[in-house]
Amino acid sequence: MNYNRYLKRHFRNSTVYIFFILFTPKGLVAQTDPAFKPISADIVKLSSKVLGEDRKVYIYVPPIDTLLPNKRYPVLYILDGDNHFSLIAEYCQYLSRRDVNVVPEMIIVGIPNTNRIRDLTPTNSIWGYDGKPDTSSNSRFKSSGGGNNFLLFLGAELIPYIEAHYKTTHFKIFAGHSFGGITTINCLLTQPNMFGAYIAISPSFWWDRGYLLSLAEEKLKNDRIINKMIFYSDANEGMPDDPTFHANLLKFDSIITQRKITGLDHKYVHYPEDTHMTEPIKAYYDALRFIFRRWDSH
Amino acid sequence: MNYNRYLKRHFRNSTVYIFFILFTPKGLVAQTDPAFKPISADIVKLSSKVLGEDRKVYIYVPPIDTLLPNKRYPVLYILDGDNHFSLIAEYCQYLSRRDVNVVPEMIIVGIPNTNRIRDLTPTNSIWGYDGKPDTSSNSRFKSSGGGNNFLLFLGAELIPYIEAHYKTTHFKIFAGHSFGGITTINCLLTQPNMFGAYIAISPSFWWDRGYLLSLAEEKLKNDRIINKMIFYSDANEGMPDDPTFHANLLKFDSIITQRKITGLDHKYVHYPEDTHMTEPIKAYYDALRFIFRRWDSH
Repeated sequence: MNYNRYLKRHFRNSTVYIFFILFTPKGLVAQTDPAFKPISADIVKLSSKVLGEDRKVYIYVPPIDTLLPNKRYPVLYILDGDNHFSLIAEYCQYLSRRDVNVVPEMIIVGIPNTNRIRDLTPTNSIWGYDGKPDTSSNSRFKSSGGGNNFLLFLGAELIPYIEAHYKTTHFKIFAGHSFGGITTINCLLTQPNMFGAYIAISPSFWWDRGYLLSLAEEKLKNDRIINKMIFYSDANEGMPDDPTFHANLLKFDSIITQRKITGLDHKYVHYPEDTHMTEPIKAYYDALRFIFRRWDSH
Repeated sequence: MNYNRYLKRHFRNSTVYIFFILFTPKGLVAQTDPAFKPISADIVKLSSKVLGEDRKVYIYVPPIDTLLPNKRYPVLYILDGDNHFSLIAEYCQYLSRRDVNVVPEMIIVGIPNTNRIRDLTPTNSIWGYDGKPDTSSNSRFKSSGGGNNFLLFLGAELIPYIEAHYKTTHFKIFAGHSFGGITTINCLLTQPNMFGAYIAISPSFWWDRGYLLSLAEEKLKNDRIINKMIFYSDANEGMPDDPTFHANLLKFDSIITQRKITGLDHKYVHYPEDTHMTEPIKAYYDALRFIFRRWDSH
């Protein structure tokens, strides 16, 4: 209880419960097998005023560097934490090893869902992927449109909490897949300064009859987006019969490319041999390599 | 102690200690977050007569399917278990999810090293990557050449242990990187029936002045290799100055391709944008997709 009160003081809007748990057997094995590096993850439950509910997040923290005990780390926030947190934590841990050394050590914050459609859609809409409205009383899109409120949760509650309790640098990455992809792009378009780099893997541009593509047309201007990075991609969605998903990505890419937005360092990759669900394996890796391609490891 | 005695009966050549430990926090979280699937790993220590030492192995077992409690699984054996076990366990767990479903659920056996150069080289040789002999008294290659004895450990001790204690199908995969890659290829050439599929990521064909390429010339014949699969690859090793590493892969590929070995389903991938150490991220994924490309998930 005392520990909770201590944490409460550092995070005024929320009651915080922290459970520190061992993430892999690596920690247990490390004594006898020094090649095994421990991965530890904190599981933190935030009582969010913005969302009006408790939110659990998973936090991977690199092993302490005894030579640099005050070392600070970039932070990668990943949506659909229940699906992709352990994969990207594995990537970051492996790729930052001294004998691999192509990305820096990072803190990874995985955000699992409570109401995915509510939190990861920018507008309230009943228009489906098939281009038809779902007017049924139990439409699964009924709760949609909480995306901007969810970004408020990130900006006002989650990010301040992480920055108060972990050794962070200013550089932050926001990564998402599918509805998570339109969430990261919505953030880039509406609050570009919240993160330094954005990853959007197969963003669901079909949402609300192309709402985000229209928003991109309106917001992607040379004077607004300054010194940001974005990686976006798609797989074989709808192919070979329906090229709409791929056409949407090409359209987004053409907006960025044709306007020559100098402040936006961008990369688009198409994965024709992957499905919507296998693509994250390749794309999260390629995104990390893109974002850190000029990172100086020395 | 009773449990050890029970296991001893099932594995005559070895004293066995088993530690069952929780591998990730998924298990702990599962009660409140059903989207998180538990990954558990057994750590087994085998007292090997063949190698004359204790060997620890890591074993990932898919979650029990309550509808199919007697379900049996293919087994993937991965060398350099200290480096690559958790990555490939993560891949297999994600790719076999019902909403991804491109590979079957598998048992993964990770084999960490004790004396890597001894176990993962097929011959005793002092010839280095630079083409020069290392004649110093403390040459790191002094202990090399235990590769065939290591294959005996696999065939006579480890595989029988796994098949006695886990629900396995007959299909087995043998995966390795670098020296691990020459180990899997040496196995394919000398004992092709030990496994059904072989993965060799950037195999060190330079070993012992090209010993394995000569062996491939001799052994890769249409009547010996029947109904096997092999995936092999390389990255940007030595480039742009020294194309030898890449040329060795091309030579191995040309032996297989020109002889039209009908019993060997093969795929070669070159990753020019990856290093020797980043390549496994892409190549283990591509290898799994290749091996299971005709797998029927229904």
